[in-house]
Amino acid sequence: MSAQPPTDATASTTIGFTELVALLQQVFVRHGTSPEVAAILAHNCASAERDGAHSHGVFRIPGYVSTLNSGWVNGSALPVVEDVASGFVRVDADNGFAQPALAAARPLLVAKARSAGIALLAIRNSHHFAALWPDVEPFAEEGLVALSVVNSMTCVVPHGADRPLFGTNPIAFAAPRADGSPIVFDLATSAIAHGDVQIAARKGERLPPGMGVDSLGQPTQDPKAILEGGALLPFGGHKGSALSMMVELLAAALTGGNFSFEFNWADHPGARTPWTGQLLILIDPSKTAGQNFAERSQELVRQMHAAGLRRLPGDRRHRTRAKSLETGVEVDAHALDQLREWAH
Amino acid sequence: MSAQPPTDATASTTIGFTELVALLQQVFVRHGTSPEVAAILAHNCASAERDGAHSHGVFRIPGYVSTLNSGWVNGSALPVVEDVASGFVRVDADNGFAQPALAAARPLLVAKARSAGIALLAIRNSHHFAALWPDVEPFAEEGLVALSVVNSMTCVVPHGADRPLFGTNPIAFAAPRADGSPIVFDLATSAIAHGDVQIAARKGERLPPGMGVDSLGQPTQDPKAILEGGALLPFGGHKGSALSMMVELLAAALTGGNFSFEFNWADHPGARTPWTGQLLILIDPSKTAGQNFAERSQELVRQMHAAGLRRLPGDRRHRTRAKSLETGVEVDAHALDQLREWAH
Repeated sequence: MSAQPPTDATASTTIGFTELVALLQQVFVRHGTSPEVAAILAHNCASAERDGAHSHGVFRIPGYVSTLNSGWVNGSALPVVEDVASGFVRVDADNGFAQPALAAARPLLVAKARSAGIALLAIRNSHHFAALWPDVEPFAEEGLVALSVVNSMTCVVPHGADRPLFGTNPIAFAAPRADGSPIVFDLATSAIAHGDVQIAARKGERLPPGMGVDSLGQPTQDPKAILEGGALLPFGGHKGSALSMMVELLAAALTGGNFSFEFNWADHPGARTPWTGQLLILIDPSKTAGQNFAERSQELVRQMHAAGLRRLPGDRRHRTRAKSLETGVEVDAHALDQLREWAH
Repeated sequence: MSAQPPTDATASTTIGFTELVALLQQVFVRHGTSPEVAAILAHNCASAERDGAHSHGVFRIPGYVSTLNSGWVNGSALPVVEDVASGFVRVDADNGFAQPALAAARPLLVAKARSAGIALLAIRNSHHFAALWPDVEPFAEEGLVALSVVNSMTCVVPHGADRPLFGTNPIAFAAPRADGSPIVFDLATSAIAHGDVQIAARKGERLPPGMGVDSLGQPTQDPKAILEGGALLPFGGHKGSALSMMVELLAAALTGGNFSFEFNWADHPGARTPWTGQLLILIDPSKTAGQNFAERSQELVRQMHAAGLRRLPGDRRHRTRAKSLETGVEVDAHALDQLREWAH
């Protein structure tokens, strides 16, 4: 063991994707969610693990479990979908997770996008604790262009400010293309995702410069100093900060949800999920003039490769997915034991 | 003269905003635009100068003039507006400037946004040579949330690629707020705006690190090396690069316009305007659940100030505007002489 680098110190094993989904579903139900909510969250979490997006995979389960145990979130939420206008759908997530709210609104939202050419989904009173790309990628697989933003919890210092206010506030985008998987990206507007800081802290690794500050507001490369009273910085200086502000406006002000700084989980020890809102915009590119959209996006991909780009956003994830579906999803052996324990 | 720093080497004078608009309008008409197109471009350009956004103000006029002289753009374009769906408007800009195309579609677009809750404008076959914030800010002044993207011309190396492909591809956003001017930003997805590189080159100033590469692909802080065969970098590494890619997809693939790398002005010496497309999304926040949107955005502003942020995106511009409207727009004296010459 001592000859191995720290990142390989834990043994990994494999599990079939369907088996992982079923196991996670049991864990969720066992900790108080309805079977419907469990099915959606399990598929979401297993998909992240399958794609090698570890910071949003099985790694998140302890946070889900402690949050459900704390009573902070409604595991049996029944989202209420409102048909507001020909391009506008609202959902009250009933203090539950955002993914079941999206699932409940999905058929209406897709029908509106195909009819109106564009449609907006405003989810409020919701908790988002997952990666954002699983919310947009399936729409691109159906030929739609999707854009989503979600705000989280205060941990990012706006550019030019003294203390944290914004969440990590990711932006995710997906677009179909003719030959191959959709073009998909999911980027935190913070310099680094919060989950990656946690993983670095656990592994005892230092971060690159420019990611965060300590509790005194001083730049630090120590992930623990960021987690213990410190904060993250936005990516790309004032520009990333402006985009993070936009996410607060779209995901909270425009949905009726909380800003990242408006909820307080102090009375719910163990709570980890931000209680905010989420916005999703769907566009039907068949309304576009001229050539087929998917052919055009394929042409862009072709030119990006010709310019020397070896890997597109989403490429690594799609390759890991193919491997996982063939040989099983690679999971930390200790984490898998823990899941099996929690499932019973 | 020699005692003054280079940036003050040229004398400045003032001109009333209305007078500046009228003068610019004459310049445009004198160089072959219709009076309608001239009125729109003159107001746009004078507004940038009025707000202190110099790289998109009077500084742009030589580029407009040489482009019009080259026959590259149709100065008397008649945009064709198509009502495609309840939330989707298309405009063929008739190889003219994008701003008259937006103006032609505006009433239909606003009506759709107010009715459907969200509406999309896809402009193609258009030239955009101005700042992007003037396209979104007026909608926020009417209580709407607006987002726009426009692609430009190949000058940015995608993150991880060897040679330039994307344009500077800005993203502009505007949202109303209860007390004060709208919240507005307009950010190039390149590390620096192309106009600012030109201004630095003219002034003989060096750029901060990380803005661009020379003709051999090596990092440089010399603006001339960037302009002469070099290229810009995206802001914020792979994240800014992903956003720039999204702009190509939305502003070109989704409108039916050209990608930044698809047009060739080699046969039109003097041509400067990118012949691409533009996307604009309008959202009616009155469809939002709960509290008034403008009150909520005002609350975000309040909290940003409380976190130590002294200046919001757009604040400096709005302050310069107030001063310009009171004491006149400050313009370089030599540039003003040149305008008067071109107007006759």
